[in-house]
Amino acid sequence: MSGLQFEIRAMDGAARCGVLHLPRGAVETPAFMPVGTAGTVKAMLPENVAATGARIVLGNTYHLMLRPGAERIARLGGLHKFMDWPFSILTDSGGFQVMSLAALRDVREEGVRFRSHIDGSEHFLSPERAMEIQDLLGSNIQMVLDECAPYPASRERIESSLALSMRWAKRSRAAFRAKSGRFCFGIVQGGVYPDLRRRSAEELVAAGFDGYAVGGLAVGEGQSAMFDVIAGTAPDLPQMRPRYLMGVGKPDDIIGAARLGIDMFDCVLPTRSGRNGQAFTWAGALNLRNARHADDPGPLDANCSCECCRRFSRAYLHHVVKSGEIIASMLLTWHNLFFFQDMLNRFRAAVAEQKTEQFCTRFLNGYRDGQADETG
Amino acid sequence: MSGLQFEIRAMDGAARCGVLHLPRGAVETPAFMPVGTAGTVKAMLPENVAATGARIVLGNTYHLMLRPGAERIARLGGLHKFMDWPFSILTDSGGFQVMSLAALRDVREEGVRFRSHIDGSEHFLSPERAMEIQDLLGSNIQMVLDECAPYPASRERIESSLALSMRWAKRSRAAFRAKSGRFCFGIVQGGVYPDLRRRSAEELVAAGFDGYAVGGLAVGEGQSAMFDVIAGTAPDLPQMRPRYLMGVGKPDDIIGAARLGIDMFDCVLPTRSGRNGQAFTWAGALNLRNARHADDPGPLDANCSCECCRRFSRAYLHHVVKSGEIIASMLLTWHNLFFFQDMLNRFRAAVAEQKTEQFCTRFLNGYRDGQADETG
Repeated sequence: MSGLQFEIRAMDGAARCGVLHLPRGAVETPAFMPVGTAGTVKAMLPENVAATGARIVLGNTYHLMLRPGAERIARLGGLHKFMDWPFSILTDSGGFQVMSLAALRDVREEGVRFRSHIDGSEHFLSPERAMEIQDLLGSNIQMVLDECAPYPASRERIESSLALSMRWAKRSRAAFRAKSGRFCFGIVQGGVYPDLRRRSAEELVAAGFDGYAVGGLAVGEGQSAMFDVIAGTAPDLPQMRPRYLMGVGKPDDIIGAARLGIDMFDCVLPTRSGRNGQAFTWAGALNLRNARHADDPGPLDANCSCECCRRFSRAYLHHVVKSGEIIASMLLTWHNLFFFQDMLNRFRAAVAEQKTEQFCTRFLNGYRDGQADETG
Repeated sequence: MSGLQFEIRAMDGAARCGVLHLPRGAVETPAFMPVGTAGTVKAMLPENVAATGARIVLGNTYHLMLRPGAERIARLGGLHKFMDWPFSILTDSGGFQVMSLAALRDVREEGVRFRSHIDGSEHFLSPERAMEIQDLLGSNIQMVLDECAPYPASRERIESSLALSMRWAKRSRAAFRAKSGRFCFGIVQGGVYPDLRRRSAEELVAAGFDGYAVGGLAVGEGQSAMFDVIAGTAPDLPQMRPRYLMGVGKPDDIIGAARLGIDMFDCVLPTRSGRNGQAFTWAGALNLRNARHADDPGPLDANCSCECCRRFSRAYLHHVVKSGEIIASMLLTWHNLFFFQDMLNRFRAAVAEQKTEQFCTRFLNGYRDGQADETG
């Protein structure tokens, strides 16, 4: 596996900026992938997702296999056509959602049997089926099936889970259908144990993948422990392959992890928060329900050039959030996705200028001060 | 009052097509006005409302006076700026919603005292206050306050309600703040009684308004009785002033009323139906929840050129409706608003070509056949 062209343009300490050259368009890294769970980035039209700068979105195998079904999407021409998204798609393997959403999970060597959280119907997911589904969807970057151990868990539990995940990774690797524009990533597990993380990375690198994800983080271990795992794992991964931190995270998590050499991120936070009246700004997170915004003619963020900030006041956003209007979800999601892209745009520029440390310090100070102000 | 330039370009029987020359842009008539109740056409960005062809939207005085408040909107620069809508806005007077939504209504000669359906707070609406609110909002076409009698009601009840509405219309007329780009319409009432409708029209015409609405219809009297009232009332209104049928309606109601000489319409149907998984097409209304759409790669309507029909399949729309995704409301609302505009585009072309009867017959046959198919 070596088809995925990943160009590193600059490095500064452990941080790097580069480009994933995918057939559906270049993706600048570090990259943030909006989550399009069920064939839609919630509350966004595809062209507006693209307008935020996103060039790759994440689709969820678990949700799509249950509804509308992978075979159906394949008959309809694949996920890109189905959701009218012309750029790249990465799909997860479904493992994480099986553990967090499905009922009556039965994990065996062969795979996992579970019941749908939607209608209780029984389903089976194996490494081979996870790759088949991702092939049917037409996913550009496909993830191996892994078992996501709960947190906290004993070292013994993590170790046996890791061993299963590594066997599943190799089966996934063997089942992956290599085609033009299709790539496959392995996932490093091992909890917060450096030796298990190293063992996992070594096994995956020996098997050979187009890129390497770090999984099983942001599950309750705390930011400091998460950064320790990333700092320990990154050097064990091939320098020239992309590194993807799954399901992370808050703006300060992302900046901190990018500083440690992570190239790709996904998280529901900007979209979910947007539907809950929360906006991310350079001065921290804002809750638009707060009455102090009711008469404010200014934008969400004076340092933001998104459509929402150029055209609508905080007073308007407060009004539509309070009124439960759908446009509140639409505008705040748009802003939040733009903010996450803009944040990484500026991070990449800082890496290119060898000013990563200054950028990170300035960003984190401004961001945390603002949060204190809002909650105070 | 004569500032409103209304140009009639063609007539065919009672039907006419023309142009309202408003400072914020020409509005071709017969025109459909999407409803933007609380400062947003629900589930639509303003640019997408404009992309459907709409050049005027309706705002609700009742909703906006309660939240966020007319004085607040005025301080923020007016409703156009608040909601980022560059074209024209017509506002109702609040009378209809006071009767249908508010609690503890006390209607007196002076005005109506009521409690907000949102928080129970007490409010007062008089003809003078209704016009003041519409002035604060910056509405381009302002409606007089009227009392909306319940249906059914005795002739005596309708007659006394009409008398009050006519006194309120004259007070509204006197309170209207004439400015550049601001116009005022009267509202004909009188239930289903031809002599009361005539009396109402004559009193309003004597007072003199920029345009005339027909109110108190589509409240349960049935389409045939509604058409009878319109056919009886239109000749009593000045030929050269626009006629607005308030709150109507279904596609066949609109085509039937336009055929009788109505120039303007508003209705929540395309937006509300869009949020409920219903689409209007040239072959009738469709319920996208219906399982027969699950594998359908075709568009909602092969005769529609809207963004939704050009880019998304019925299968996708079925999936996002079933999944409760916000994009379902966004896309179906967009399509429905486009359909209502497109329907009147084609109606206007038919009037210009003196083919109104043929168009109406063909439209109604196709539309009703399709409905039978969907519900059968």
